[in-house]
Amino acid sequence: MPTIFELGEKESLKRALAPLKASEFAIIGSGDDAAVMKAPGGNYLVSTDTMIENHDFRFDFSSAFDLGWKAIASNYSDIAAMGGIPTGAVVALSVRSETEIDWLTEFVRGLQQASETLAPGSGIVGGDLATSEQGFISVTAFGDLDGLRPLVRSSAQPGDGLFVGGTLGKAAAGLALLQHPDPQYARSYDELVNIQLRPTPPIELGKLANEQGATSMMDISDGLSTDAKRLAEASGVNINIESSSLLGFQAVLEQAALSIEASTLPWVLHGGEDHSLLATFPPDAQVPKGFKRIGSVLQGDAELTLDGELIQPQGWDSVTGD
Amino acid sequence: MPTIFELGEKESLKRALAPLKASEFAIIGSGDDAAVMKAPGGNYLVSTDTMIENHDFRFDFSSAFDLGWKAIASNYSDIAAMGGIPTGAVVALSVRSETEIDWLTEFVRGLQQASETLAPGSGIVGGDLATSEQGFISVTAFGDLDGLRPLVRSSAQPGDGLFVGGTLGKAAAGLALLQHPDPQYARSYDELVNIQLRPTPPIELGKLANEQGATSMMDISDGLSTDAKRLAEASGVNINIESSSLLGFQAVLEQAALSIEASTLPWVLHGGEDHSLLATFPPDAQVPKGFKRIGSVLQGDAELTLDGELIQPQGWDSVTGD
Repeated sequence: MPTIFELGEKESLKRALAPLKASEFAIIGSGDDAAVMKAPGGNYLVSTDTMIENHDFRFDFSSAFDLGWKAIASNYSDIAAMGGIPTGAVVALSVRSETEIDWLTEFVRGLQQASETLAPGSGIVGGDLATSEQGFISVTAFGDLDGLRPLVRSSAQPGDGLFVGGTLGKAAAGLALLQHPDPQYARSYDELVNIQLRPTPPIELGKLANEQGATSMMDISDGLSTDAKRLAEASGVNINIESSSLLGFQAVLEQAALSIEASTLPWVLHGGEDHSLLATFPPDAQVPKGFKRIGSVLQGDAELTLDGELIQPQGWDSVTGD
Repeated sequence: MPTIFELGEKESLKRALAPLKASEFAIIGSGDDAAVMKAPGGNYLVSTDTMIENHDFRFDFSSAFDLGWKAIASNYSDIAAMGGIPTGAVVALSVRSETEIDWLTEFVRGLQQASETLAPGSGIVGGDLATSEQGFISVTAFGDLDGLRPLVRSSAQPGDGLFVGGTLGKAAAGLALLQHPDPQYARSYDELVNIQLRPTPPIELGKLANEQGATSMMDISDGLSTDAKRLAEASGVNINIESSSLLGFQAVLEQAALSIEASTLPWVLHGGEDHSLLATFPPDAQVPKGFKRIGSVLQGDAELTLDGELIQPQGWDSVTGD
């Protein structure tokens, strides 16, 4: 099996990119100095996020397909969180020069499948391949608001309900299982491990929430407590989470937690990488199916409480790594 | 001086991003899940490029300001090469955790100044900061065509003239001077070193060339021979470069070349990173001032010749590193 070093950039990309379908929003896709994308509403959404070897991923945990999938899923959730639909992405990848061409082909297949599955019609419109000693994947995703307003995180209103669309804690549980020295635990709870490796954020709920009058939204990438606190700060409100509303999220993690002597509440409250949506809706809104109420927005000065008690965010910081 | 690790992601970004001006094309800039950009013409340009420590840059050659500047300049030239104007960029940066906050502030100042200087009104609209053992900078730039068609590399026509806008070989000469063991040579030719460290591609020529009916265009990032060959292949034409037309580009490098016993022709013909524009114009075009004729487009099957003799491209491959 030839390595990408042996093939060089041009031939590697030619082989790996062959099965790629262009975004339906692309007027000119990959291959020229720049892609040209349609912006039918006269504006477009842009978000960027990076995954770094041994900080955000490990080659022994994640397959090439998984990494391609996750890179797209984690960026598309940011587009959904603005109330839009993802239209495409550009991907910068750097891996060791001895990487085999099959790895690259599988990575591209992961990008393509995530793109098609999570946002039908979207696609990869450009990229950059290089070699380095430490691997990284940097994705910039694009989106369309379809004429709707952008749904920012700074407009939650006292009186709103706080809702989650998607899973909570499953990705953190999956990571804990993967990190356990005995690999049998990861094998026993493959649904949780799969959410960690190939998250499936509810992308379509983003635009639906926008249409149904959500007042604010963001994606939960660094953990519910960290991201809810950010929402509170951006909106200048207090947020109270009701622990009773988290019991359903905890229940599905119970067995896995018991097996490795962990607790479910920290996973649900502080665990990152589910890439679910955190939204606020006014009391009279028709909240789309798929969102679950977990708390309330209150007047105040950016405090985060659980059943009225102050709590400290304990999510992920990409600089300090904890 | 605190490090970014000591401050964490949020506080580091707060300090470093304070002086940043938003793009005039940004409806919502940095700070939410995604930025919202204007696309007045109903479409937008997207390009991405990455710089990796010890492959594309060295911290002992480049200051933080230089790296910020170069990251923007090299991406904006891709936007210009499509015949558009840059409107903004998102920047993913990863550096060692012991990096001091002043380094980050200077890097952002480089981003900002390049953006303002090379494309007034453009600006940084988002980013991502992380830590890693090997540093890298990945930029995705955006652009607007102002109602013009995108100027691709696949539409050069036999009979066109071949033109360069910007410098040729200066960046390669600068790199050779920097790599010389005796630092006095780099100090003696600071104009060349400065082009290597802070390239100043003629961004405004991109849109001008489009308005004046250029038939094709691309940026010269990997060397004239490599990129002219790509243009020939994409357009299905032969390209002949006239060596006499390169003498002017060689003349300004002569003294530096003599000083370190190098030759000027390889720099001009194969040297990368000037990020100049390579364009083709029909015989009757009013070629904008700033472009210099260097050859012709001929019927044929993607051959590249110098005065009619076949030559092999010898530019940069980001995978093999040579």
